[in-house]
Amino acid sequence: MSTERALRLPGIAYGGDYNPEQWPEEVWAEDMHLMGEAGVTMVSVGIFSWALLEPAEGVYDFSRMDSVLDLLQQNGIAADLATPTAAPPAWFFKAHPEALPVDADGRTLSYGSRQTFCPSSPAYRKASLRIANVLAERYADHPAVAMWHVHNEYGCHNATCYCDASAKAFRRWLRTRYADDLAALNHAWGTTFWSQRYYAWDEILPPRTTAAPPNPTHRLDWRRFCSDELLSLCTAEREVLRRAAPDTPATTNFMVLPTFDALDYWRWAPELDILSNDHYLMSDDPEPEVDIALSGDLMRSLAGGRPWLLMEHSTGAVNWQPVNRAKLPGEMRRNALAHVAHGADGILFFQWRAAKAGAEQWHSAMLPHAGTDSTIWRDVVLLGADLRSIAQVRGSTSSAQVAIIWDWEARWALELPSQPSSSVRYQDLVRDWYRPLWRAGIAVDFVRPDDPGLDRYKLLLAPSLYLVDDTSADNLTGFVERGGTLAVGFHSGAVDENCHVRLGGYPGAFREILGVHGDELFPLLPGQTVGLTGEVPRDARADLWTERIRLTGAEAVATYSDGPLAGVPAVTRHTYSAGTAWYVATRPEPATLAALMERICQEAGVRPECETPAGIEVVRRRGTDADYLFLIDHAGQGAEIPAHGVELLTGKAVCGSVTVPAGGAAVVREPH
Amino acid sequence: MSTERALRLPGIAYGGDYNPEQWPEEVWAEDMHLMGEAGVTMVSVGIFSWALLEPAEGVYDFSRMDSVLDLLQQNGIAADLATPTAAPPAWFFKAHPEALPVDADGRTLSYGSRQTFCPSSPAYRKASLRIANVLAERYADHPAVAMWHVHNEYGCHNATCYCDASAKAFRRWLRTRYADDLAALNHAWGTTFWSQRYYAWDEILPPRTTAAPPNPTHRLDWRRFCSDELLSLCTAEREVLRRAAPDTPATTNFMVLPTFDALDYWRWAPELDILSNDHYLMSDDPEPEVDIALSGDLMRSLAGGRPWLLMEHSTGAVNWQPVNRAKLPGEMRRNALAHVAHGADGILFFQWRAAKAGAEQWHSAMLPHAGTDSTIWRDVVLLGADLRSIAQVRGSTSSAQVAIIWDWEARWALELPSQPSSSVRYQDLVRDWYRPLWRAGIAVDFVRPDDPGLDRYKLLLAPSLYLVDDTSADNLTGFVERGGTLAVGFHSGAVDENCHVRLGGYPGAFREILGVHGDELFPLLPGQTVGLTGEVPRDARADLWTERIRLTGAEAVATYSDGPLAGVPAVTRHTYSAGTAWYVATRPEPATLAALMERICQEAGVRPECETPAGIEVVRRRGTDADYLFLIDHAGQGAEIPAHGVELLTGKAVCGSVTVPAGGAAVVREPH
Amino acid sequence: MSTERALRLPGIAYGGDYNPEQWPEEVWAEDMHLMGEAGVTMVSVGIFSWALLEPAEGVYDFSRMDSVLDLLQQNGIAADLATPTAAPPAWFFKAHPEALPVDADGRTLSYGSRQTFCPSSPAYRKASLRIANVLAERYADHPAVAMWHVHNEYGCHNATCYCDASAKAFRRWLRTRYADDLAALNHAWGTTFWSQRYYAWDEILPPRTTAAPPNPTHRLDWRRFCSDELLSLCTAEREVLRRAAPDTPATTNFMVLPTFDALDYWRWAPELDILSNDHYLMSDDPEPEVDIALSGDLMRSLAGGRPWLLMEHSTGAVNWQPVNRAKLPGEMRRNALAHVAHGADGILFFQWRAAKAGAEQWHSAMLPHAGTDSTIWRDVVLLGADLRSIAQVRGSTSSAQVAIIWDWEARWALELPSQPSSSVRYQDLVRDWYRPLWRAGIAVDFVRPDDPGLDRYKLLLAPSLYLVDDTSADNLTGFVERGGTLAVGFHSGAVDENCHVRLGGYPGAFREILGVHGDELFPLLPGQTVGLTGEVPRDARADLWTERIRLTGAEAVATYSDGPLAGVPAVTRHTYSAGTAWYVATRPEPATLAALMERICQEAGVRPECETPAGIEVVRRRGTDADYLFLIDHAGQGAEIPAHGVELLTGKAVCGSVTVPAGGAAVVREPH
Repeated sequence: MSTERALRLPGIAYGGDYNPEQWPEEVWAEDMHLMGEAGVTMVSVGIFSWALLEPAEGVYDFSRMDSVLDLLQQNGIAADLATPTAAPPAWFFKAHPEALPVDADGRTLSYGSRQTFCPSSPAYRKASLRIANVLAERYADHPAVAMWHVHNEYGCHNATCYCDASAKAFRRWLRTRYADDLAALNHAWGTTFWSQRYYAWDEILPPRTTAAPPNPTHRLDWRRFCSDELLSLCTAEREVLRRAAPDTPATTNFMVLPTFDALDYWRWAPELDILSNDHYLMSDDPEPEVDIALSGDLMRSLAGGRPWLLMEHSTGAVNWQPVNRAKLPGEMRRNALAHVAHGADGILFFQWRAAKAGAEQWHSAMLPHAGTDSTIWRDVVLLGADLRSIAQVRGSTSSAQVAIIWDWEARWALELPSQPSSSVRYQDLVRDWYRPLWRAGIAVDFVRPDDPGLDRYKLLLAPSLYLVDDTSADNLTGFVERGGTLAVGFHSGAVDENCHVRLGGYPGAFREILGVHGDELFPLLPGQTVGLTGEVPRDARADLWTERIRLTGAEAVATYSDGPLAGVPAVTRHTYSAGTAWYVATRPEPATLAALMERICQEAGVRPECETPAGIEVVRRRGTDADYLFLIDHAGQGAEIPAHGVELLTGKAVCGSVTVPAGGAAVVREPH
Repeated sequence: MSTERALRLPGIAYGGDYNPEQWPEEVWAEDMHLMGEAGVTMVSVGIFSWALLEPAEGVYDFSRMDSVLDLLQQNGIAADLATPTAAPPAWFFKAHPEALPVDADGRTLSYGSRQTFCPSSPAYRKASLRIANVLAERYADHPAVAMWHVHNEYGCHNATCYCDASAKAFRRWLRTRYADDLAALNHAWGTTFWSQRYYAWDEILPPRTTAAPPNPTHRLDWRRFCSDELLSLCTAEREVLRRAAPDTPATTNFMVLPTFDALDYWRWAPELDILSNDHYLMSDDPEPEVDIALSGDLMRSLAGGRPWLLMEHSTGAVNWQPVNRAKLPGEMRRNALAHVAHGADGILFFQWRAAKAGAEQWHSAMLPHAGTDSTIWRDVVLLGADLRSIAQVRGSTSSAQVAIIWDWEARWALELPSQPSSSVRYQDLVRDWYRPLWRAGIAVDFVRPDDPGLDRYKLLLAPSLYLVDDTSADNLTGFVERGGTLAVGFHSGAVDENCHVRLGGYPGAFREILGVHGDELFPLLPGQTVGLTGEVPRDARADLWTERIRLTGAEAVATYSDGPLAGVPAVTRHTYSAGTAWYVATRPEPATLAALMERICQEAGVRPECETPAGIEVVRRRGTDADYLFLIDHAGQGAEIPAHGVELLTGKAVCGSVTVPAGGAAVVREPH
Repeated sequence: MSTERALRLPGIAYGGDYNPEQWPEEVWAEDMHLMGEAGVTMVSVGIFSWALLEPAEGVYDFSRMDSVLDLLQQNGIAADLATPTAAPPAWFFKAHPEALPVDADGRTLSYGSRQTFCPSSPAYRKASLRIANVLAERYADHPAVAMWHVHNEYGCHNATCYCDASAKAFRRWLRTRYADDLAALNHAWGTTFWSQRYYAWDEILPPRTTAAPPNPTHRLDWRRFCSDELLSLCTAEREVLRRAAPDTPATTNFMVLPTFDALDYWRWAPELDILSNDHYLMSDDPEPEVDIALSGDLMRSLAGGRPWLLMEHSTGAVNWQPVNRAKLPGEMRRNALAHVAHGADGILFFQWRAAKAGAEQWHSAMLPHAGTDSTIWRDVVLLGADLRSIAQVRGSTSSAQVAIIWDWEARWALELPSQPSSSVRYQDLVRDWYRPLWRAGIAVDFVRPDDPGLDRYKLLLAPSLYLVDDTSADNLTGFVERGGTLAVGFHSGAVDENCHVRLGGYPGAFREILGVHGDELFPLLPGQTVGLTGEVPRDARADLWTERIRLTGAEAVATYSDGPLAGVPAVTRHTYSAGTAWYVATRPEPATLAALMERICQEAGVRPECETPAGIEVVRRRGTDADYLFLIDHAGQGAEIPAHGVELLTGKAVCGSVTVPAGGAAVVREPH
């Protein structure tokens, strides 16, 4: 990620997606007036405007966009101007039906929605760069344009296409990865198995639906390719924009949220000037605040510790889940402040004005169908004021003593078919470990397994690292050797970058530093649990996974108390060189896992930001002159928390303690 | 619906589908004998006989049909002669593979079953009208032919086809709907959203599978088109038949039953001379008698209050559900009498003789596999006698003080994707409200929202009217203004005929007459409930849906007692002009809803036909000289009910009270 | 099944699939060493080696196979040499894309996995016979080659293909079945129903996806064809192999296990020299030992009572179920000994060495990822010794007084769509009846319904025989007439070989011998149960199915105590001629069914092999000089069982009683 090009806006950016083209022009003036009332400072425009901007191939109509940008400029609102390439017009598909995506079953998808194009289509690439270029050249110098919004949610609906053009692109990508050496590919994919050997590059296809289980490495390379293929579209657009406006920063909205895993954002992040994220709550998530925190910490980590923007979230319900719940009283405000606490320097919504028509007509907005006489609108205005109160937080960073290893390749590999258990899900495993730290007020970064600067942390957690290459394995080993504490979750270190099992005992790459040797995996059936005994809470139980390991240097912290592995170690601790390595060979239930994490943190010398009662989230952002202590009450009880400085939301001095109102928040400026 | 052409049969028609072609001719004589024994007066013939009647294109063989019709004529049994167009022969598809239907995924379906043709196929249209015409000309004057049975269950399996011919037909239909104005279509569909604007008619496709959510108005217009497209096939056949036999009435068998919603029967009904219905019980429905009543009332309403025919139901189990339960003792008789009570002047079954082979071999029939030595056959003979006993009921009508608004467009729109809750189902909502009225013995009509004669009712119920156009909204408002009582269910009045949200607060179109203003929808997750307090039973609860409304004229009858909307009105009552308007903003559980309906009825001055104990269904048909009071015991306890006249099933005089036997029925002739 | 060609190996064959091509040659020497340690005597080689053996069309490379076979020969290990035809190479599909299979929806499947070819493809047939022939000619006389392993698991993934070539082959098969008489086909399929009549052979298609339910007989004939079509590939390969090596026996590995039902192995068995089976446990099966026993008895019966080989099972977890559980302590040994007890003369595993890469990398093996320092390896070595201890069991047979009728056609027909209940599953019904016999230690054979030698049994059970032709029905009737006891499960005798319902009352074909007459089927909904009274345990209940029958000669053993059929017979007993016939018209819960089976056995004079406590499986194999009593403890309690002779696993003399260790087994040689 470049730092040359920054977003030049004061305070915390505030706003949302703005689609004036869906409304008569008489509404626009009201929009400006109300944006002023709410304190909106930036809006995203043009995201789905291709069909209006280019009504026919090479014919352009910028009249409406000109007016909108001028109006924003006149009203002091910055524009985050989007390339409209996420939704090509109907005329494009009429002319280029071959650019429609094809699924793994060979079914060609139709247009009439959005994001229904093949990422490898030459026609799409040409048309999208053409409109991006015309747009960039026209508005490069428009004073309203503060940032480019490249495309929209890459891969949200069309992360994969299995058509022949995609096959060709896949082969091109593979020739690069394997340095044009087909034997290397055959080795990596293990094609001796099931008679899958390729004798010519053009025999290779996307992993289309077949009769029996797929080759895992074929699938894994396909996922790598799909992420890279979309990234190449993104960087191509970015280049067009940068050429026209060298100083304007470019972002694209990521989707760091539980239901999306198509893109390896570690590879994307360096290509963008500013990172931004879209984050939505799952209606059936009993603790969505955990997900906001995790997602925010991951975004901040992707941004190299620097602030990022929340490009989209919702004021209330979304419309794409089976049942879309509204937000509870105060929840929108808590959500927004939590995003800021975890590093966001901008709070934007999808969308400004609730739509009358179209697929998202029941998605909430800043200005609801009911208009300004509504709870949501009043809350939106109040939130604008809140954000102004904490404007000085902008640019502050954070620091953590604990890092969690996050790796998209390990995630993809873990969730391939034909695994010991299809119930093991990466996101769940990471969240299981993240949650007790979040509850305890312990700051967490996320890192790549090959991060060269691990020594800045006291404690490193790898809840799930099924796939790990030698470099990364050595990296983690070195961290422990030099005195660090590492905790590793089950089924980690199992395979290398080609998905080849590491032989000689489980958990392959980490056998030595963990001081254990496993010879057989015992995943548990749904509903099946086992007891734990040892240094764990009474009646502790675990589920999902067990392994038969024996100690080869480690000590047993917990063992199974029943089942076929009774007496076998379940959690181990190993002093290795100057450091310590823990292995958690099962999934303890939450209370036991929390106790375990507490002990690991204590031993590693990791402390919370601040002692708070249960339900009070505590996060610290660190500025040049002061720290900012965010205290958010998710339990609805309120609390009195020791602090000194100024509470920014109320402007009141804090001498000794600050009150967190029930369901509310406090942001305390603590001068250095 | 025309009244020129009537079915000229005495009493209640009795019979079923008759497929003698599946049996050797020696069986036919036995059929005639047994039909006589059972009192059969009409059978449907020829429904799936195309392959036999036209063994090759333009080559006909009517020998078997001639014999069958003559035999029926000789035995005094009327023929309901079907056009065989629901199942084109294999030779047709061999010659016209393009007439096979294509699904939304682009998959061409194969023949070898039934109803596997594209409704927009020119080849199918030509071939079907040709055979209909040859049949009509041959049998126009055959004395056995009492009625034409056009096709069979239009849309049962092929209500939609997404092929290119269908695309062409869809565009033709759209050009008519939008008066050849593409801008009007773009406006109606809200195509500014997601860059969906169409610049040429031929860019428009059926709503084939796409990557992301569809355009809702596109989908809604597609459903309208699909219903109209099949209707155009129906009227084309009817014209052919009418030309050949101007005095013979034509029907087609509707499917007014819970699992079918493809056709807008309000548009179909006027095109037919006699309405008929196919009705089957769902094996897992704990109260199928409610469904029979609802379906019957809807059929009678479609028929403008006039009698209709039950064209198909079953003597026992069907064969197309996961598990197909048999009927309980007396259930078939109760079912048949209930259909008559709700307006049927004919009781027919699928089918006369249980099939040996084919996909419906395990579907029950009048004459089971076991033959005449069977409970079903004995019950069939008894039912024939019962129907003769009540022959005088024929032609009688009914009258109701309550009407429920039923609208297929509102149903389709409510169940589009991307709604606040996918758990909200139209049929459930209507049945929830219908059920307590049925239990209380209150007669109900169904009406269109734009029915011009609403003032004939005291009480109007709109359990679900998500989509409503201005004309209909004004129609309901006028009804209240003129003194009527209207009760409206949640999420009604939300969108106009184009699926555009009505802005300014929920429930859009009805905000003013209901005297409430809603600003946010709070659908509930599966399993989630909220408490109700106020003028409701103690411990009342509700589920599925809540809304945040405030009173703008109405009074709160019930409010939420817990959850995020505690204290917010849940049920309201508004005196508006001369009338009263109720809003039920949630789904109360059954006992609470029943209490609410009882109160609404009482206040509106609506009374039951007759006070009966729980479990006794009571329905009144009104004849020229007498009323007919149907009393049916679904609870198995029997009852003594006050009445005067003659009980027709037993022929006994009724002086003061009539006995309804346990699990049985009574039909009391009450002279005017 | 021929007996000319036998496997000439001493003792119980021991080994597994061996894929040295997946490993560097330096590993091969270790393999030989370890095979020696484990006592391996035979391995299957070359199963998926096509792409290596024939790198381009007509170009061969046998260097590696030469080395492997020589190495095996040098180490005294027999080779079960496979034709590699289960997985054609990528180059084949590149050249012959038309050989890819097409599913019922018209979707062409892709290669890159295994078994993705159309069974009717001429190109595939030609290429597979060519490689089989080249292989056979090269290795016909290689001294290591003890057996041919034809293909692999025919039909595991591609039992059906719906492409045009398959359509052609289907028509060819139909012309044979119906003696070129299209009228006979139309009659058999009942094509008069739903206008399905065919006027030309080329109008007939595979039962591709259609809009409405399929024709059942069309579907049934399709299943027959699909089994025969694969069989014709198998016999064609076998002919090629036999021509090259007339004395080498050929097998193909069957899949007699719960999840596979594509092939009619009664038709396959006679075509092979030796039968072999692949058997895997279902992770969620609480009693997989019942399944092993059932499968083993069925294999032995398919083999005409002679021994068979267990070609594949697993040392631990598999990898193709949602969650793949490991085996419990001792379970692998118990499994292996149980297979031998039920007739296996060879115990092989998939696979020798756990794979590093590919779709089966997480499938267990004899030599696990952890290597020899592992429980599995130690158990594998011990099992090798166990099998040597019981070597003399080889060739011994067994004898049973009870036979269960097993029929794939009846299974296919029972599970066709549009049945009274889709909850009725053949495998469950048979296992329900098999289980109490297994528990009681009663030996069971499986027989075809038309088995000409039924009189060798005292008791014949037909848990489910929905479809039965007249010959078979007469065969069973004769068995009873001559004094046998027959018990028949519900919904049996219902249809003939064309799926035509047998008229006149249920259960059609068996009405007379059972002395009952049924007129209506009452399947029960999921969760619904009915009480039983009479000669059954107190509080006995039943579920799944009931029927209304009346007695026409039989006596009622149990009647329903509640529900709509209260008082109707549920279980009946009929003395018919010299024999006895029982009808079980419902599904009693296990304890009641066990009591019923016990009574039926007692009355029929059937006794257990040996009285054992619950949880001890007892099976007897009968040799020339001695019997071998297998006692296996599945309950983990151990037991003392009366016996005399020598316990072979320990070599200890048994005088009066033998100890079965907890979780272990004993094999007692009982001299005649």
